[in-house]
Amino acid sequence: MTFVLPDYQLPDFLLPLFAGAPLARFEPCPADGVAPADYHATSIFPEYVHVRQEHWELVRNSRMDCVIRKTNGGLLEVTEFRRLQKGDPVAVGRGERGEDGIYLHTSGFEPARECDGEAFAFRTGTSRETSFSIAYDTLYDIMRHDKEHGRIIWVAGPAVVFDSDARKAFCELIDKGYVHGLLAGNALATHDLEGALFNTALGQGIYDKKQARLGHYHHLDALNTLRAKGSIKQAVQDGLVRDGVMHALTRNDVPYVLAGSIRDDGPLREVQADVYKAQDAMRMLAGGATTVVALATQLHTIATGNMTPSYQVMEDGTVRPVYFFIVDMSEFAAGKLADRGSLTAHAILTNVQDFMVNLNRAL
Amino acid sequence: MTFVLPDYQLPDFLLPLFAGAPLARFEPCPADGVAPADYHATSIFPEYVHVRQEHWELVRNSRMDCVIRKTNGGLLEVTEFRRLQKGDPVAVGRGERGEDGIYLHTSGFEPARECDGEAFAFRTGTSRETSFSIAYDTLYDIMRHDKEHGRIIWVAGPAVVFDSDARKAFCELIDKGYVHGLLAGNALATHDLEGALFNTALGQGIYDKKQARLGHYHHLDALNTLRAKGSIKQAVQDGLVRDGVMHALTRNDVPYVLAGSIRDDGPLREVQADVYKAQDAMRMLAGGATTVVALATQLHTIATGNMTPSYQVMEDGTVRPVYFFIVDMSEFAAGKLADRGSLTAHAILTNVQDFMVNLNRAL
Amino acid sequence: MTFVLPDYQLPDFLLPLFAGAPLARFEPCPADGVAPADYHATSIFPEYVHVRQEHWELVRNSRMDCVIRKTNGGLLEVTEFRRLQKGDPVAVGRGERGEDGIYLHTSGFEPARECDGEAFAFRTGTSRETSFSIAYDTLYDIMRHDKEHGRIIWVAGPAVVFDSDARKAFCELIDKGYVHGLLAGNALATHDLEGALFNTALGQGIYDKKQARLGHYHHLDALNTLRAKGSIKQAVQDGLVRDGVMHALTRNDVPYVLAGSIRDDGPLREVQADVYKAQDAMRMLAGGATTVVALATQLHTIATGNMTPSYQVMEDGTVRPVYFFIVDMSEFAAGKLADRGSLTAHAILTNVQDFMVNLNRAL
Amino acid sequence: MTFVLPDYQLPDFLLPLFAGAPLARFEPCPADGVAPADYHATSIFPEYVHVRQEHWELVRNSRMDCVIRKTNGGLLEVTEFRRLQKGDPVAVGRGERGEDGIYLHTSGFEPARECDGEAFAFRTGTSRETSFSIAYDTLYDIMRHDKEHGRIIWVAGPAVVFDSDARKAFCELIDKGYVHGLLAGNALATHDLEGALFNTALGQGIYDKKQARLGHYHHLDALNTLRAKGSIKQAVQDGLVRDGVMHALTRNDVPYVLAGSIRDDGPLREVQADVYKAQDAMRMLAGGATTVVALATQLHTIATGNMTPSYQVMEDGTVRPVYFFIVDMSEFAAGKLADRGSLTAHAILTNVQDFMVNLNRAL
Repeated sequence: MTFVLPDYQLPDFLLPLFAGAPLARFEPCPADGVAPADYHATSIFPEYVHVRQEHWELVRNSRMDCVIRKTNGGLLEVTEFRRLQKGDPVAVGRGERGEDGIYLHTSGFEPARECDGEAFAFRTGTSRETSFSIAYDTLYDIMRHDKEHGRIIWVAGPAVVFDSDARKAFCELIDKGYVHGLLAGNALATHDLEGALFNTALGQGIYDKKQARLGHYHHLDALNTLRAKGSIKQAVQDGLVRDGVMHALTRNDVPYVLAGSIRDDGPLREVQADVYKAQDAMRMLAGGATTVVALATQLHTIATGNMTPSYQVMEDGTVRPVYFFIVDMSEFAAGKLADRGSLTAHAILTNVQDFMVNLNRAL
Repeated sequence: MTFVLPDYQLPDFLLPLFAGAPLARFEPCPADGVAPADYHATSIFPEYVHVRQEHWELVRNSRMDCVIRKTNGGLLEVTEFRRLQKGDPVAVGRGERGEDGIYLHTSGFEPARECDGEAFAFRTGTSRETSFSIAYDTLYDIMRHDKEHGRIIWVAGPAVVFDSDARKAFCELIDKGYVHGLLAGNALATHDLEGALFNTALGQGIYDKKQARLGHYHHLDALNTLRAKGSIKQAVQDGLVRDGVMHALTRNDVPYVLAGSIRDDGPLREVQADVYKAQDAMRMLAGGATTVVALATQLHTIATGNMTPSYQVMEDGTVRPVYFFIVDMSEFAAGKLADRGSLTAHAILTNVQDFMVNLNRAL
Repeated sequence: MTFVLPDYQLPDFLLPLFAGAPLARFEPCPADGVAPADYHATSIFPEYVHVRQEHWELVRNSRMDCVIRKTNGGLLEVTEFRRLQKGDPVAVGRGERGEDGIYLHTSGFEPARECDGEAFAFRTGTSRETSFSIAYDTLYDIMRHDKEHGRIIWVAGPAVVFDSDARKAFCELIDKGYVHGLLAGNALATHDLEGALFNTALGQGIYDKKQARLGHYHHLDALNTLRAKGSIKQAVQDGLVRDGVMHALTRNDVPYVLAGSIRDDGPLREVQADVYKAQDAMRMLAGGATTVVALATQLHTIATGNMTPSYQVMEDGTVRPVYFFIVDMSEFAAGKLADRGSLTAHAILTNVQDFMVNLNRAL
Repeated sequence: MTFVLPDYQLPDFLLPLFAGAPLARFEPCPADGVAPADYHATSIFPEYVHVRQEHWELVRNSRMDCVIRKTNGGLLEVTEFRRLQKGDPVAVGRGERGEDGIYLHTSGFEPARECDGEAFAFRTGTSRETSFSIAYDTLYDIMRHDKEHGRIIWVAGPAVVFDSDARKAFCELIDKGYVHGLLAGNALATHDLEGALFNTALGQGIYDKKQARLGHYHHLDALNTLRAKGSIKQAVQDGLVRDGVMHALTRNDVPYVLAGSIRDDGPLREVQADVYKAQDAMRMLAGGATTVVALATQLHTIATGNMTPSYQVMEDGTVRPVYFFIVDMSEFAAGKLADRGSLTAHAILTNVQDFMVNLNRAL
């Protein structure tokens, strides 16, 4: 059966709330990096702004907790507070039902949730005991679809490259075209390169699990060697790095962002030291995603979750959902991450090693 | 490559400690269910008892925290305190190096552990970030070997039957002959039978995850229906139960023990209400195991771990290791469970759903 | 400020659904231990049964997943399936809104929950990051109140006695009168008695954390010694056991149930081997509780949660809530345990050691 | 009883390994940010460098995974790879026992660990079931001592300010002089300031846990307001911020570092956007610590753990241990964090809320 994207239901603009709604108001920023007091904060959902009589404009490329700025050209742009300039016109008003000229549309891809009639049911949340068969099957369908008709962005913590089978599976998924971008940190790249140079991760064999002699030098040697080379690309071209995730990304020209963090050794020369520049680079990738697969990292997953809208406006103007899959071992982490209030977010509670092997085998 | 069991290294009986060792002493139990004060407690390791001059006898079918009783026929039997009778002769002395006529042999299958020379290494314990590729491959090898040449005993919590793919995988492993016995509780059987009757677990679809109307009645209805039938076997024969783990066990005549617990509804008529009779029945199966696979249950896994020796004396007198694989999501649980001080115990930190699907696919 | 119990709001019997409701029907059980097909299953909430015209009787001492049996005397009794006798009249019909003569009243102590108007809010569940100050303060108030005007039943796993300060705090709470009953297993009592005899738990000092020489014998020695004595009471009277939880319970004549499990060593002679007899004994205590405090045990907490109603009918006929506090380290466990669909259940995610010390200090 | 720091045992320089040891060699860096191939990597332990005949110099202010650079003035400096300049002389050789002129001294404060004679013991790791009474008491002693005679540096995740009692406890500890520095991120400061302005954290009451109307705006409003003010200091001076952790730090002139991360909103103007500059600032504080208390944050705790030596050379030349306490809810996190191979690192598994309240009450 062919996978079919759910249709997007426009808001019902015939509702009285739209008829009586005022135009959205824009107020100037009082200083650089400061929004006007009553700014309207955005979400991951589609929002419509009443820009002129009977015209409600869908904001594109939205994200959590930013503001809507009107550009000189009159376009609406969702932007971070830190990028505001004094005088920039920013949408104000906190109503979400048109009363301030802004309409938040949470049910474009799903029926409005109703109060449940039954007094109670077991197992309404997601835990390790939730059945994940259908989540896997749904993911396989979406991956096959979006390989050609979307952009699949991955977010990954270092655990993905600590195991030889999972690392190999990731490389094969890259080679097969299922990875259109990767958001990660210095650690993932470092240990992947350590794997390429020494077949270890933090000194332990990624297959045989043996502690290498002086293995605690391996990741430092990998960093020092790569820093001497000047770039990962150079190391791949010179045949120094012959396998692994960074090798596969490089050979397939897949873009990636390595964001710096305070626990980094090295770092690799590709790492972005300024976290807000890293945010901007990540949003360039995440903002264009149609599916996000986030693996075993709280920091990067939350960051990406906040900057990824739940919908995407395609070139032909159609609106489609952005799927967000989170793989983690802990209910605490998955609960934090999956709480996007959207039917298109799925948490799968398992070890990322098994997840990668499963996914690669199925695709 | 064919999997080969490791050779068992006998203790070096030429060591001086053996030459000078006294015979083991046995003291009578002072009352029913009470051991003599200085009783010797057993472990999961091979122990040799100096029963007569120059003859050290290997205790068979040992287990944690029991005592060695001499039977009327002069045999050595490892038995629970609760089964002792007044006057029974029980081995005394707490020395483990022959000083009391008892020798604990921890290194039969492995080189004696040495102090590590290096000052530190990362990643010496097992966590979710441990590489599990080799653990899986080892398990596959052992399963193939023990299918014919051993006894594979499974221990399982209800989560194994909450997901349709995992439940199917378990059934197929039973059909293929990889399951020689199952230790579980009322919950696993109940929700498996709920799956057979309603395609749900606790009212939620095991594939589609939909909440069934009045689904919180399903496990009670399954229990009531099965109790009315009189037995699972009858329900299978009558065609009422047509799939699932209990169905596969019944059809393949695989023995199982369902131990009762204080949280049981029902229970099913097969459930053993007396936990010590349940212990005895479990030990009948576990004591004969050459491999144990324990899935997502702390209670049953710890219970089984305590009653399963780390070695098995085969019919031809050779001694082989008992492999013990533990699959759990939490370091806390796995740490508790895997701490058997033996190289033949492996913890795999992952969701049991993925584990079952992997295992079935590989075998 | 004095703590005041919330008023109980009776159902609004003037509602049309009551006027038109039929009398409840009772069908005979087809066999021992088997309910009639359409049995009505109970919950932890108050349920009203339409026993005769215009008379809706509140079921007392209800529990999860049992049935309503009419006794020879015409009384309504909530009972386990396993206790049914052939021919017993059991209430049938699964409607909860009067349509079968039974009314489930979930909102006696709280306003009916409404659909939330806002599109989203952060932090709606309970996690380790939830603020617990008010939960503690609420608990302190309730404890002070129920010490005199209720029954506080405790449920505890062995971790409570692994730490000297927590163990001491528990003893002091018993001495002060805050403990009217304890539900636990063999392990809690065994390690508490090990603490009394050796100052260790599983061989490790409960204060200094030092591994005692041959410490792995300590819990077995405690069991063997107590089994020889015949009872805990005797050991307390003889001055053998001079401190700890079991000592405090014995000295203060606080009733307790020790339920057996398949992982027990020993067991102590007080342990109930038959889990369903244990259930019955536990329900005797839990069914009379006005507050339950459940500490670091999944098995006993779930069991107790299922057998404790969310309300209690006092001697004067007033109806009050039963408070249920669960203390655990894991979101997974707390989520399972706290999901009682009732405002009077609270989960506190923390280490039970700190919890006990806090509680004792405050009271 | 007065707390006494353990004496530092110098290496035994009379050992033959010292007599025959060569001088340490230094090689020039081949490029900026690149160490010579055979560089020696440092650890958290004291290391002695054989700088001239019969003179072994103790490296000061060491840290994990850096190198030893000789300055123009001939001093030894432990520095990050990224700060190396072409031509800088860096110590080479990976021997740790003098063979390369470098001696790693792991047992300055503790007896060398020996192979344990007993075959097994339970409970050798740290888990939620470990007894923590002595860890608390030890911490209280050290805090009292180091308040006057040391520097207590704190590391904290946002959960510390999500609960009113914990937040108050932190403030009181600051007021009492137990906090000499804080390492945190934008989130802790933001939610603490949200608490000051709105009495909420992420929109939920920090005491009453009520969801505020439009509460999801609160942290953004706090950020926008503070950004408009220009600085936290200004907001405190103007009376806008009247309570909380940032207020207490400001009023008491306690230094802090707020390191940026990719998940930041805002950020506050005090946040350091460049993570390597943040590392440098953090190391300024952590490098001078005599005790570190790290609360509920993996990222900052690992970062700090790597940059904090296990010893400190005091002004009078004496060497003392640096204590490192880690408070976290998960064995996985604590295991990662506490694995410093040092007796002076302690993990306490509990909720940071209880920990703070306990600590403040005791001091």
